[in-house]
Order: sequence, then structure tokens, then C-alpha cells
Amino acid sequence: MQEENSFVSPEKTFAVVMAGGKGERFWPLSRAARPKQLLALTGGKPLVAEAVDRLSGLIPEENIVIVTNAALVAPIKEILGEGSRVGVVGEPVGRDTAAAVAAGAAWCARRAEDGVMCVLTADHLIGDLDVFRATLRGAMAFAAAEDALLTLGIAPREPATGYGYIHRGEESRPLPGGEGEVCKVERFVEKPCREKAEAYLAEGGYFWNSGMFVWSLRSLAAALARHCPEKADCFARWKEARDDAAYLAMLEKDYPGLEKISVDYALMEKADNVWVVPGRFSWDDVGSFPSLAKHIPDDGAGNAVLGAVEALGSAGNVVLSEGRLTALVGVEDLVVVQAEGVTLIARKDRAEEIKKLLAQLREKGGYEKLF
Amino acid sequence: MQEENSFVSPEKTFAVVMAGGKGERFWPLSRAARPKQLLALTGGKPLVAEAVDRLSGLIPEENIVIVTNAALVAPIKEILGEGSRVGVVGEPVGRDTAAAVAAGAAWCARRAEDGVMCVLTADHLIGDLDVFRATLRGAMAFAAAEDALLTLGIAPREPATGYGYIHRGEESRPLPGGEGEVCKVERFVEKPCREKAEAYLAEGGYFWNSGMFVWSLRSLAAALARHCPEKADCFARWKEARDDAAYLAMLEKDYPGLEKISVDYALMEKADNVWVVPGRFSWDDVGSFPSLAKHIPDDGAGNAVLGAVEALGSAGNVVLSEGRLTALVGVEDLVVVQAEGVTLIARKDRAEEIKKLLAQLREKGGYEKLF
Repeated sequence: MQEENSFVSPEKTFAVVMAGGKGERFWPLSRAARPKQLLALTGGKPLVAEAVDRLSGLIPEENIVIVTNAALVAPIKEILGEGSRVGVVGEPVGRDTAAAVAAGAAWCARRAEDGVMCVLTADHLIGDLDVFRATLRGAMAFAAAEDALLTLGIAPREPATGYGYIHRGEESRPLPGGEGEVCKVERFVEKPCREKAEAYLAEGGYFWNSGMFVWSLRSLAAALARHCPEKADCFARWKEARDDAAYLAMLEKDYPGLEKISVDYALMEKADNVWVVPGRFSWDDVGSFPSLAKHIPDDGAGNAVLGAVEALGSAGNVVLSEGRLTALVGVEDLVVVQAEGVTLIARKDRAEEIKKLLAQLREKGGYEKLF
Repeated sequence: MQEENSFVSPEKTFAVVMAGGKGERFWPLSRAARPKQLLALTGGKPLVAEAVDRLSGLIPEENIVIVTNAALVAPIKEILGEGSRVGVVGEPVGRDTAAAVAAGAAWCARRAEDGVMCVLTADHLIGDLDVFRATLRGAMAFAAAEDALLTLGIAPREPATGYGYIHRGEESRPLPGGEGEVCKVERFVEKPCREKAEAYLAEGGYFWNSGMFVWSLRSLAAALARHCPEKADCFARWKEARDDAAYLAMLEKDYPGLEKISVDYALMEKADNVWVVPGRFSWDDVGSFPSLAKHIPDDGAGNAVLGAVEALGSAGNVVLSEGRLTALVGVEDLVVVQAEGVTLIARKDRAEEIKKLLAQLREKGGYEKLF
């Protein structure tokens, strides 16, 4: 077991917060200019602000960078506020997570080439923050000491088919400084069918792939060089940028030509030094309106509601009704969302079809200002 | 059969349009200050304006009076427009239809004591207007020639339990000037249970009580004197008012002390000179949102919609969405109504519980501006 003093000194710790998602599943609340990560989905702060707040006391604000798409740089800066020292980098075009990781890593390496970097998400809900921070702190210590690529796994609560799974191997080490362990990864598993998901749950040793990673910049550079030379080359050049403007100009020039590939495919599934840290904190990717139900208040009748809602003989509904009264009479298991100029009413078990409805509206035309 | 020239000369024909309803069943579209009869429920004109338009070519505009509650006088005048010669009388307090009929009859008698008067409704939908007008014209001719109280009956299309029924007797006469007949009434029947309604439909000779009446002012005065002396006395005095101001002052003074009773109870069910004219025009009292379905456009997928509605895998819904986009995903048999600041979502077969919901909101408080 590593000692307390093996923790990485704060100025060498970094966080790259991935905030490039589109979030069509939250339309009409989310729009192109206001995707999920910018929404205060549970009635608190916008998710991206909560993602930054979670790192308080763990990683210095000036060592945090949000990587997002160019159009969201201004609104995110507005959310963070003028006094914020958090960096915001806009990708000129979307090239999936491997490119975003390379860009974020270069941003960090320009500040400390021997740093340790966490890749975090902007649009998930995380609870038990002390546990979350202890987990990251331990993972960073482990990554600083070993040539290892760490991924945070979430113990599955149900046989979900919407996540990839990580299967741990035999080898494990204690998590530095805390309860928990770090386990060698045997393999990554694609989003499974229901039966397989149930088998994983029964068998144990499987974790949801949360999309959060921890590694040293040196280990990342080595792994990229071996498995993903294109991004290794980018990282090597981008980190040498003489200033922020030069760095952004490089992204502008190089991005369009990059392969569109996720960091999971490009790196994690190929490398043999991958470890998983089972997360003991609560985690939810809130992938849709129905999954919001457990994070917002119950009206006492079994409806999850935000805003003004009056229900009569109605239960099991998820209602977001800011700035407007929603009155329900005798309805069950609906998602009702009021947003400026639009009201969405969907059966809860068909909420994923919102994307199809949006495609239908786009085809019809005339609703452009509502996307 | 009476001759064409037996028709009443236009200056002796009058219409009293009853427009005092509250219309809570159409909340949130209807409000206290904007009840059903003021709404353009089917996307055309406000119902009260349509009720006046229906009389075009039949009854001179200046012989039409709308009897409503005091608060609605100004909005109704606004709907009719500055150039309108239609009278609008506001009742100081609600005293049910017998009082309104007496007030309307006095208004007419001040213009022509030997006139014939139709009592019509402001909040029903009527089609086949040529037939409607021919029916009224014939009924007025009949009423001018006979000491008879006529009621317009509607041939039942289904075993409705929401209307009173009129059972015709054996005796009948041809309707002057048109197809159809005028039948002696055997009895009025209260709103029946389902079984009885089915029996009426099977037996035949039963008509829905539409709340529309035709009589000469002389016959009305005689019937009131016999069955309803309180209203007979009012009528006798009110018709002698020297001008409009005096007439309105009399209503103001007398109304609070009047018995609250319907013209059906006070008069029609007691008199023995009551006849029914079976209406061959289409008629719908549109008592609730679900009943609107057949009067507004179908979206091609089985949803009745007004305004901007986009539906995916949804059918059987009634959606009123003026000024706002309503997006439906996988929902069926709902009533969805958008009105300023409120969205109502009700199961179609429970739409009548809107009143209960309103009571619940009133009890809770804080929503006064939405009533």
C-alpha cells in the first residue's frame, strides 16, 4: 500500500472536463446552443458548473480545462463567471473523444509535462463527493507511480443495456490512501443485450464504463505513440505551442483532418496497462428525462416535478415546468417538459424517440428556432 | 299546412341569446373573464359571434339581444364590434334561465309587444345553417299563429346521459314553410342513466332538450302569469321601462330578490301548450374538450388539433396549441390544452375532472390569476 505522502502535489494535478455533447435527448429543454451539460437539470447549477465544483479542494482551478465545441465556449464562460480561472477550449469541429483527450492533454502538458490528468465528464450526476474526491486522489497517486491507464468503473445497480462494461481481471492493488482497490482490466465489453447484462450482474466483476480516466501525461504519451500515432503526433506538437493563441491556431488547423474515434476504441481497448478503479460514489449519466425522476423532488403522489405542477389522480410522471403551470388530470407515466415555446409530452418508455421527432420537425421545416 | 305568407314579418321577430355560462370545463382556455361562449373553440369566431351570425337574414340585428352576466358585457361588445346593433344586457347577478328569459322578453316587448321571440344559446355549435334558419322561421310562424310554447329538439345520435330529453306525443302539425313537423310534447325527462337513454333511442320519439325556445311574447306572458307569477310580474313591469337606463335600473333592483330557477322547471315542464320542433340541423353543445374532436382538423394520424402540433406515434388526442408547439411522442387519448401560462394534460375520459382540479388549485391558493 502506498503512503499518504505519495499523493501528487496539487500543482501537478489536472482535470480535462469533456463538455462537447449535443444532448438531443433533452429537447426541448436542451437546444443546440444549450445542450444537456449547460442545463440545471435537477434545479441546481448547470451540470458543467457542478462538474467544476466537484473538484474543489482536489485540483486547482487553474489546472482545470473544459473541452467543448466552439459554439459553447462563450456560454460556458458565462456560466463559470468572470472570476473563474478554469480554461475553456473550443474544438473547431467534433472529432470524438480521442482528439478531445489529446487537446486537453496538450493543454495540461504546456503547464506541467510531468503532470497527472483526470478526464471527467460534464453531463453526469455524481454524489458522495468525499468518496469521489478520495477515489480521484488515490487514482492520481497510482497513475503517478505506475505506467498505467486508469478508468473509473461504476458498480452496476441494474442490468443496464445503455453502457459499455469493464471486466476486471485477477490482479489488484489497494487504492492509495483510501478504501477500495485498483484492478487490472481484462477486457472492455460493448453495450450488451439484456441477457448478457443480467449475466454480468450475476457474475460480478463487471463495471459500467463511466468515461472517466486518470493517467500521467507520460503514460498517455507513451500509449498514444504505441496505439494511436496520429493523436500522439498532435499531442507532441500541440504541447509545444508558445502561447494559448498558437495552441488554438494549431487545433483550428489540425482538427478537420483528424480521424473521428473515441478514446475507448483508439486507446483503452488496445493498451495492456489498463486498470479500473471501482467507484464507490453514486453516479448517474441521466441519459434521458425518465432517468431524472430519482434526482428531482417527488410531489407526494409519485410524480417527479420541478416547477409549478398540480396533479389530480396522476402518478409516475416526470414534469419539468419552470415558468408555467402544468395541470395533470388522470395521466400516468408521462414525461412533460415545458421550455420556451415548446411543450413535450412523451410516454416515459418511449422518451428515446424524441430524436426521431426532432428529425421529423427538421424535415418539415419552419421550426428551426426551436432546435 | 300554413302558407308561406304566414311567416312573421322581420320587424316582429326577436332573438334572445343566452350567454351567461361560466364554462369551467374549458379551463385553462376559458377563464372567469373569458368563458366558453367568448372562445373561438373551433378556430373560427368566438361562439357568441357565431350565434349572432347564424341569424343573418332571419332576424334583424337590432332585434337581437344577448343576455349575459354584467362582467361579460364589455368583452362581448368588443367581440361584436363598434358597428353592431345587437343589444347586450348584463344581469347584475345570476338567477338562472327563467329570469334571463323574462329580462330578454321585456327587452323585446319594449320594441314590439306583439313580437315573436326565439331563445337561443351562445355556446353551442350548429351546422346546416339553412336548415336551422328554416326551422326557426317555421317555428316563429307557428308560434305567431298558435298559443304555443315551442322547444327545439335534437334527434339523439347516441344514448347521451348529459342532456334532458323531450318525449313527443301523438299530435303533430307540419312545420310552416318547410320540411319537418311540430309535435305536441308529452313530457320532459331529466338527464337519464345510460340504460334509459338507450331505451329512448331504441323507442324513438325522444329528442335532446337543446335549450332553444320559440314563442310569441303574448303566449309567454300568459304562461308566466299562470305558472311563474314572480317572473310574470317582472316581465310586466320591465317592459314598461321608459328607456334602456330605466330598464337596466329595474333589473339591478329586482334581480337579487328573484328565485333562481330554470325556464324548464319554471315554465316548460308545467305548461300544457308545449310543442317540440325536431331539429334537422346538426347541433353540438361541445360540453368538454373531448367533444371538440369532431369539430377541429385531424392531423392525419387521428389527433384533433388546433395550432402547432407535431405528433410521433400518437393518436386519439385532442390538442389545442395556439401560440406554442406541442410535441407528442407515443401518447394516446389525451386532452392537451395550452393557454397563457398554463398547460393542461388530461386523460380524455377524465376531462370532466378539470373542475375538481380547479377546486384543488383554489384551495391551495396562489393561482388566482389563472382562474
